[in-house]
Amino acid sequence: MKDVASAAGVALKTVSRVVNGEPGVHPATAERVRAAIDRLGYSRNESARVLRRGTTATIGLVIEDVADPFYSGLSRAVEDVVIEHGCLLLSGSSGEEPGRERELVETFCARRVDGLIMVPAGDDHTYLRPELETGTPVVFADRPPGAGLDVDTVLADNVGGAAQAVRHLLGHGHRRIAFLGDDPAIFTAAERLQGYQEALGGLFDERLVVMRSPAPESVRADLARLFDSDDPPTALFTGNGRYTVTVLRALAGRRPALVGFDDFELADLLDPGVSVVAQDPAWMGRVAAELLFRRLRGDAGPPEHIQLPVRLIARGSGELPGEAPY
Amino acid sequence: MKDVASAAGVALKTVSRVVNGEPGVHPATAERVRAAIDRLGYSRNESARVLRRGTTATIGLVIEDVADPFYSGLSRAVEDVVIEHGCLLLSGSSGEEPGRERELVETFCARRVDGLIMVPAGDDHTYLRPELETGTPVVFADRPPGAGLDVDTVLADNVGGAAQAVRHLLGHGHRRIAFLGDDPAIFTAAERLQGYQEALGGLFDERLVVMRSPAPESVRADLARLFDSDDPPTALFTGNGRYTVTVLRALAGRRPALVGFDDFELADLLDPGVSVVAQDPAWMGRVAAELLFRRLRGDAGPPEHIQLPVRLIARGSGELPGEAPY
Repeated sequence: MKDVASAAGVALKTVSRVVNGEPGVHPATAERVRAAIDRLGYSRNESARVLRRGTTATIGLVIEDVADPFYSGLSRAVEDVVIEHGCLLLSGSSGEEPGRERELVETFCARRVDGLIMVPAGDDHTYLRPELETGTPVVFADRPPGAGLDVDTVLADNVGGAAQAVRHLLGHGHRRIAFLGDDPAIFTAAERLQGYQEALGGLFDERLVVMRSPAPESVRADLARLFDSDDPPTALFTGNGRYTVTVLRALAGRRPALVGFDDFELADLLDPGVSVVAQDPAWMGRVAAELLFRRLRGDAGPPEHIQLPVRLIARGSGELPGEAPY
Repeated sequence: MKDVASAAGVALKTVSRVVNGEPGVHPATAERVRAAIDRLGYSRNESARVLRRGTTATIGLVIEDVADPFYSGLSRAVEDVVIEHGCLLLSGSSGEEPGRERELVETFCARRVDGLIMVPAGDDHTYLRPELETGTPVVFADRPPGAGLDVDTVLADNVGGAAQAVRHLLGHGHRRIAFLGDDPAIFTAAERLQGYQEALGGLFDERLVVMRSPAPESVRADLARLFDSDDPPTALFTGNGRYTVTVLRALAGRRPALVGFDDFELADLLDPGVSVVAQDPAWMGRVAAELLFRRLRGDAGPPEHIQLPVRLIARGSGELPGEAPY
């Protein structure tokens, strides 16, 4: 890109505009850029890659766990975009293990993937530098890369969404709102804890916070401890879809108000319907994949950081009344 | 394998037993087989493959749709077995399109996968013959290959499971039992229709059978037609998990007895709980993957056809009473 820009005597941004067919470039300038591209043999579009290699262009996707509906929904959307571009998707689950994530990435790269979409498990991604330097674009989805790596990210508004859930419960008269989050080492769990804490302000009580992976036994024990205390919660905010389902099964007849982060199938058919702060995993997958293909087509602009809004869906469980406001 | 057997002067089965470390072979015979293997350079174990290629051994998985929990559960189990063997999984969704299935398989093969697990979309798999002849093992899961190809299969007892669901409803006094299956071109849908019809015998009424892909609008229309007829059904048997969920959402207050094929998350938390004939997709994935690794270790025995049992889980919806038995 830089060579093309300097050969054509234009700014990098202009080259990017021409490559992506964006407006705002004088026809004569565009022609000069295209001539420079031809001269330098610069071409990143998929068909050229396919022709060069004699095989279908391939995208690698690393997610956390394909058996989690959030990630399978994201996966399917990425795959749809990849197919629309006539390309192939290779995917694998890290199982929340940084070593496994790196192994997957390295194997994908050894098999010459053209681009990567990652939901990272680890917090050190400097091992990606050589790939990035050879021009393989990488987009992080759901969670950002570790320190020292500035690449494209597509994240949900985790802090804002958690605050919205808590304000909703406060609005229905609740003052003792417990948060059952996930392992705080997980980016999204930490962000949602922050949103929860910010929205509660002076009502924040660390005794109402549980941050660990939602195993059925530990969730049952944590709920028993919370509800058997002197000052029990009247409402729960659960930190992700997996956690919400585990809590619903462990509630065993108790009916606190509840808002969960992440929507899930059948949330509307339960009684009461489960109120959630919904992300759209398919949207996230689609945005990440489209950003990646934009990079593959030659967009060499600075890293983009896209934040997707979330929305509260009231279905009944989050509207159960708390104590009367005082 | 045949060369080893003839060089060692033993039966093919004996070679297979030695390679797989199974009992029943005299130590001296086993030693002779191993010597023949060394002499002929026969070796199919993963580490040898890895050493030969300088990269991780890789398994390809083709499923129908990763966003369907049945297939994501199967996927995850396959991936677990693959990881246990220190190998890598590449996977993709066919979206029920034969052309896409073939494209995925061909791309996997071009990237030199060591073995394939397939949930087929199409009914012609003769294109796999060259791969099979060069020694790449293939296991079909959930659905068998098309005519003319005899390879390993791992299928559920679809006919028996459907019959079990129908007999359960008959036992609760139902005589008008509708079947909402999927596209009859899908192997499992056709098998389940057969089990339904066999169990009903003389009570079979084709007007109670709907065989098409479960889109929300068509399901609503089909249910309205069934229930508005002169002789409506008192019970429903739904042909797969996706269908059951779509029907539950479309029932809109009606409460017929219902048994679904396939279990699904939260089936127990609905009111009434949803009775199902449960397959275990994780078990199916594990069995298929373990069979594949047995082949990779050199088991060259005849194709195996494994049928996994299913089980009826009564949760309430399938036990709602029909008319009194007459």
